[in-house]
Amino acid sequence: MNNRSPITILGIDPGSRITGVGVITARGSDLKYVYSESLKLPKGELAIRLHDIYARLQHIIEQTKPDMVAIERVFLAKNPQSALVLGHARGAAMLAAVNNSLPIVEYSATEIKKTVVGRGRADKAQVQHMMRVLLGLRTAPEEDASDALAAAVCHAHHQQINTTVREAGYKIL
Amino acid sequence: MNNRSPITILGIDPGSRITGVGVITARGSDLKYVYSESLKLPKGELAIRLHDIYARLQHIIEQTKPDMVAIERVFLAKNPQSALVLGHARGAAMLAAVNNSLPIVEYSATEIKKTVVGRGRADKAQVQHMMRVLLGLRTAPEEDASDALAAAVCHAHHQQINTTVREAGYKIL
Repeated sequence: MNNRSPITILGIDPGSRITGVGVITARGSDLKYVYSESLKLPKGELAIRLHDIYARLQHIIEQTKPDMVAIERVFLAKNPQSALVLGHARGAAMLAAVNNSLPIVEYSATEIKKTVVGRGRADKAQVQHMMRVLLGLRTAPEEDASDALAAAVCHAHHQQINTTVREAGYKIL
Repeated sequence: MNNRSPITILGIDPGSRITGVGVITARGSDLKYVYSESLKLPKGELAIRLHDIYARLQHIIEQTKPDMVAIERVFLAKNPQSALVLGHARGAAMLAAVNNSLPIVEYSATEIKKTVVGRGRADKAQVQHMMRVLLGLRTAPEEDASDALAAAVCHAHHQQINTTVREAGYKIL
């Protein structure tokens, strides 16, 4: 069983104005940066903005050929109006994944921060810093791109733990 | 100028659990029922439900070849959590339209009810009744399908007014 073959993970941090996108490959605990982008959406018609998110993700999926998608789970938005717009954007991102037959794993912001920074209430600058360190980058990616990379790194870490536990002969429930 | 050529309108009433779909053709004030459906989504993974909405709408668009989409505008949802889920569903519906290059027009529930029933606070049974009467159906379509047909009828009515005004030589600002 070759459980050390690399997997490519597309992380997505959806937002009503900016959607972060980050792609890494993970072979065990060895992580490599592939691509990241903060997808800024100009104000304007919502349908056009959704199409932009979808089309851009479609392009990134074609280029980087991820095996799966890790997306930030949203529990509670601040207010119904921003929740509604965020829902549209997140729906577009999920559709781009599912229309490309990619499995989707969801992690809460707290889980992601806890995994990459060590505590669930870390601020964005700490996430950026850790992405720079963990992925060996010269400069930190932008905030939303870092959050997306962090979602991907979080998934890689969980995969790695599962593999290690499996190799040690434990059963994962 | 042939402003009496029929247009096919796809009305959509997005919801977190049920998305109403209704297709009509309109030639001036002459409305014809084409198709309607209350797209019930089984509980389960959100991504799969979004894919179901998208794929079903894609199929209906291929079959009925609408010229445009009329969708219910949502101003305020009851709470952030339901707004978030509704946003995902509405985003999926809008993407199906925009990915097929269909123009989208939005109408509020109040505008739709005012147009088809005559008052903005009409209940769902009145909308169902009016759809049965206006489209000459034996039985009223289901609630959500009726709301979707009503969105399409609302758009047909606004188009018709614009055409009449234009024919009378008035300029529409």
